[in-house]
Amino acid sequence: MFKAEIKSETLKGLVNIVSTLVDEVKFVVGSEGVSITAIDPAHIALISVSIDKDAFIFYEADGGNELGIDLDKFKNVLKLSSANDTIIMEYDEERNLLTLHIGNITRRMGLVDTMGMGDPRLPNVPFDSVVTLKAEHLLKGIRASEDISDFLRLSVQDSGFELSCEGDLDFASLKIEPSDLEELKCDGDSTCLYPIDYFSDVVKVIPSGTSVTLKMSSDLPVTLRFDLAEGKAEVVYFLAPRVENE
Amino acid sequence: MFKAEIKSETLKGLVNIVSTLVDEVKFVVGSEGVSITAIDPAHIALISVSIDKDAFIFYEADGGNELGIDLDKFKNVLKLSSANDTIIMEYDEERNLLTLHIGNITRRMGLVDTMGMGDPRLPNVPFDSVVTLKAEHLLKGIRASEDISDFLRLSVQDSGFELSCEGDLDFASLKIEPSDLEELKCDGDSTCLYPIDYFSDVVKVIPSGTSVTLKMSSDLPVTLRFDLAEGKAEVVYFLAPRVENE
Amino acid sequence: MFKAEIKSETLKGLVNIVSTLVDEVKFVVGSEGVSITAIDPAHIALISVSIDKDAFIFYEADGGNELGIDLDKFKNVLKLSSANDTIIMEYDEERNLLTLHIGNITRRMGLVDTMGMGDPRLPNVPFDSVVTLKAEHLLKGIRASEDISDFLRLSVQDSGFELSCEGDLDFASLKIEPSDLEELKCDGDSTCLYPIDYFSDVVKVIPSGTSVTLKMSSDLPVTLRFDLAEGKAEVVYFLAPRVENE
Repeated sequence: MFKAEIKSETLKGLVNIVSTLVDEVKFVVGSEGVSITAIDPAHIALISVSIDKDAFIFYEADGGNELGIDLDKFKNVLKLSSANDTIIMEYDEERNLLTLHIGNITRRMGLVDTMGMGDPRLPNVPFDSVVTLKAEHLLKGIRASEDISDFLRLSVQDSGFELSCEGDLDFASLKIEPSDLEELKCDGDSTCLYPIDYFSDVVKVIPSGTSVTLKMSSDLPVTLRFDLAEGKAEVVYFLAPRVENE
Repeated sequence: MFKAEIKSETLKGLVNIVSTLVDEVKFVVGSEGVSITAIDPAHIALISVSIDKDAFIFYEADGGNELGIDLDKFKNVLKLSSANDTIIMEYDEERNLLTLHIGNITRRMGLVDTMGMGDPRLPNVPFDSVVTLKAEHLLKGIRASEDISDFLRLSVQDSGFELSCEGDLDFASLKIEPSDLEELKCDGDSTCLYPIDYFSDVVKVIPSGTSVTLKMSSDLPVTLRFDLAEGKAEVVYFLAPRVENE
Repeated sequence: MFKAEIKSETLKGLVNIVSTLVDEVKFVVGSEGVSITAIDPAHIALISVSIDKDAFIFYEADGGNELGIDLDKFKNVLKLSSANDTIIMEYDEERNLLTLHIGNITRRMGLVDTMGMGDPRLPNVPFDSVVTLKAEHLLKGIRASEDISDFLRLSVQDSGFELSCEGDLDFASLKIEPSDLEELKCDGDSTCLYPIDYFSDVVKVIPSGTSVTLKMSSDLPVTLRFDLAEGKAEVVYFLAPRVENE
């Protein structure tokens, strides 16, 4: 049993983030909120979104449902709503259908099979460095690095945070001074290459003004963590480093 | 003999409507105005546009001319004008050329042969129900129905007007209460499926704020009727229902 | 040795103009400024851009460098800057690398080989007529002529300047009265056809409001001359006429 109402803006933001990684996903509906976990087909990144029931205007769930969502279809339906609209979702367990109400529009959707979708666990990755900064800094570093290499270097030192990218002759770097960072902890210099396309895909959908925390160590996955829905939803994103023997 | 001046905005609106159905069309220039009638190649829809001579700033015609217009070319020429520009059209009967003057631009166009273009008569379709509403309601119903099915259901009852669309599992519906309708007459419930692409093409080019009147009966063509050019041009659009044995 | 700072807007404008004609170009860095000369592969047009050192915020050059620039790559880097940003360019002669600094972004670029790039001389083309007018008039004439023919006719007479285009049946013309021209000298009527795609490409990137001077004679190349960077950069563009026996 699941029935809930949520601001269109909130739902759109969460769905956009998840759809950078997968086409179909499982909404695990618990009594305290909805959680979504997904790994991309190449197993390079893992995303986990936890939406607290307080992110909803109305939330009623007994906690036993898993909804298989086709994200493209879901996004198209969300486009029918304006920023200020609210969306009422109602799950018909018997027929495995989700009905969305947006104003005087009723939209019923067939759901996809969740059988093949696992329940990936969040890895516990150790880290030497922590940096918190506005998402727009990350975006700027990515844009400066485009067309140079497939990998982006993230480096944390006491002297600041750097995004850089190196090709045969070309090189791009964005250096962010400690004074422009919201947080900088560095128990050891960390530097590592990550696939720029994955990093770029997720950074591009983080709303401008959002504070993002990166935790990393040399040669280990980087963890990005940020809040959405005024702190009532949390996104954690793990991205594997470049494999050595490439 | 035909010479006329018209506001660019007016002419653009009328041409956009007709070009949803055909690529080439015949402007029948009468002494009291211009009429355009067209049937799409599949004979599923018929459009009739009547432009009163009062829709023109200046109008001089002896009533004997038929101008074969290539609508894409015509639309490209109209794009040279701004909203506040006027367009002077002048027909050279001897050489079958239409010259358009837009400010200090002169644009002469070769016309297409009108021999193969018939003179379709407007059918006299009986109807049980009449609904008048703003075009934006229709547009909203179409957008909610996209990607579900090729057919849109229109239903008129005393309780209101509904646009809906049903697929195997998916379903969309927009219900409009009598209080949001400008007119509702229902001498019998009417419900019928129409091809969504045709309906969508014409609704998308109706200016926002325009009142559209639909007349329909179950299993019969629907008639859409609306005014353009501040009431000095009238558009009537007939759309055939889904054929039963499809 | 070359180090200079320039407003992003200025550099973007100059690069856009040159890139209508070639993909790679040579920046000839002199002690008094930078000059760029390029001929398109088909030898139909020649462009020459002279940027005075006063167009730069800071300019230091000993005058012996030629920088081979990949214009697409250069334009992508310039996109990292906003209109009010400045760009610091620094040339590493030993490694043949150009480094651009845009705020806290550092972008190093490999340069292309300039060996195959000649030093085209500006031709000395005689002319009977001179016309100066705002670029937007030229743009309007081009837009009216699209899809009619591959050639645009330019005509200067005492009665004004005309851009026209003639197909089999179709014809377009934009006439500009002497009162709408900033300058009109006509020692003999001039009329000539030029390839519309070349003319269009360059006119489309001239900023609106720019005064453009055209010098021409019948059957000879036309010269376009205009200033950018508040008069501190000059562009001269030569375009060959239509070859007779086409």
